[in-house]
Amino acid sequence: MSDRVSIIEVGPRDGLQNEKTPISVADRIAFVERLIDAGLPKVEVGAFVSPKAVPQMMGSAEVLRGVSHLRGEFHVLVPNEKGYEASQAAGAKVIAVFASASEGFSRANINCSVAESIERFKPVLARAKADGIKVRGYISCVLGCPFDGEVEPQAVVNVARTLFDLGCYEISLGDTIGVGTPVKARELMRAVGGSVPAANLAMHFHDTYGQALANLYAGMEEGVRVIDSAAGGLGGCPYAPGATGNVATEDVVYMLEGMGIRTGVDMEKLLAATNEVAALLGRPPVSRVASALNAKKKRAS
Amino acid sequence: MSDRVSIIEVGPRDGLQNEKTPISVADRIAFVERLIDAGLPKVEVGAFVSPKAVPQMMGSAEVLRGVSHLRGEFHVLVPNEKGYEASQAAGAKVIAVFASASEGFSRANINCSVAESIERFKPVLARAKADGIKVRGYISCVLGCPFDGEVEPQAVVNVARTLFDLGCYEISLGDTIGVGTPVKARELMRAVGGSVPAANLAMHFHDTYGQALANLYAGMEEGVRVIDSAAGGLGGCPYAPGATGNVATEDVVYMLEGMGIRTGVDMEKLLAATNEVAALLGRPPVSRVASALNAKKKRAS
Repeated sequence: MSDRVSIIEVGPRDGLQNEKTPISVADRIAFVERLIDAGLPKVEVGAFVSPKAVPQMMGSAEVLRGVSHLRGEFHVLVPNEKGYEASQAAGAKVIAVFASASEGFSRANINCSVAESIERFKPVLARAKADGIKVRGYISCVLGCPFDGEVEPQAVVNVARTLFDLGCYEISLGDTIGVGTPVKARELMRAVGGSVPAANLAMHFHDTYGQALANLYAGMEEGVRVIDSAAGGLGGCPYAPGATGNVATEDVVYMLEGMGIRTGVDMEKLLAATNEVAALLGRPPVSRVASALNAKKKRAS
Repeated sequence: MSDRVSIIEVGPRDGLQNEKTPISVADRIAFVERLIDAGLPKVEVGAFVSPKAVPQMMGSAEVLRGVSHLRGEFHVLVPNEKGYEASQAAGAKVIAVFASASEGFSRANINCSVAESIERFKPVLARAKADGIKVRGYISCVLGCPFDGEVEPQAVVNVARTLFDLGCYEISLGDTIGVGTPVKARELMRAVGGSVPAANLAMHFHDTYGQALANLYAGMEEGVRVIDSAAGGLGGCPYAPGATGNVATEDVVYMLEGMGIRTGVDMEKLLAATNEVAALLGRPPVSRVASALNAKKKRAS
């Protein structure tokens, strides 16, 4: 398995969006700068969504403009044409759209069926294609849904294939509530890999039940080589407040490096970025690696 | 992989031994009772070591006597002949001895070489054999040592083979400081499995860097089917105070059940046992599953 893996750092968006405390635009820009400097060149930096609904993502245009001089690939979430236009005004070159693998989550999250949600962002994909903008497709609830429970792999395959056919360069498979376990994760990657090339798939796992690294390892056995993660394990789970959020970038990097896979990440710099944001949020990072390294530092000092 | 896995619950010994706050004999007996009731029939309940050196294990004879009427298999740690005699006076039927895979850890921990430590417990093993007492062998630092760094798999193979030849029915391979990663864990199980049958191996992993479940999954791919874990992830790491301890039984059970492996564990009862001890220790459990389930309960109430 000692080949390359690409990490998409989603802390500044998927992470912070699910934290209670909003972080200022200036602090979010500084966070992205630190992440880039730590060796994470692909960062999801914001979302062009309603600031009323998601105050944490307010000022995403400023964040995107504020980091545009840095060497990196910056992703922003775009829910509709209005968001697309705002993203383009801010200079976005990579956008992300999202659909759900489960009807229950689609209804609860965006108040429409899965098929309707895909119809909604077709114009976004058409415009992005015309404008030469790369589009990443997120699928949520791929290993379980807080409303529907079990999700059939075939439902994920169908949405993934549709997004890929519509032009998404990468399909990020999200275990939104972290209920997946390794055999199921591997079987899902195999199933989706039968319809979309594994090279175009990403794993976006949450660590709610501590399964994320095992699931990533299992998914890698099926050849998936792109991993979404958030510095410090930022982001909670709206369906279990107080639970762990995204798999922590530190923990992923530790595993990959231990597997002989070079990530190019400077762990010390990443830890500093994580600790900075944790201080702003007023709580310690939930990453196991960050906890262990911080404990070691404390002991040494 | 949907066959049987056996869990050895080490919370009352390896867990509590590494917690700062000592727990009373009565509370430890109650803890073991709850674990048995939760469906964990194999529990490590104490250690016949110096109460001065390890005050947390004081009264292990009383704990063992206090649970002897319960249906279960109770393990106690025994470092030498004196400990063996004390364990027999208390009615122990399964004892555990320990050696290190690394010279540095052996020196620091028990002030002798690995070879000397094996010589030391040879009389214990001889007496146990004569007395019809089962002996489990622990090997520490199998995936890394806080003093020597990397540990050669061959060093682990040698100690494992020696313990097995001396009559240990099971060799528990301990990643004492939690630095292992899945490819190395799998390779180690393959290497040791070449000298000792996989059926006689156990994985004893710590979650210091969040890698334990991934490592267990990887080790299971080599056929190892016995897992040591501690309720609530009890136990810290003396080399990184504040870091995570043993892999949490809840997290292991969640993974196994998700893999279609029936554990027989009642998660609700296990969570209650964990929360009870966490309250005595004055801190929340570090198990991800326990955190998520507690968060859900809090929200529902």
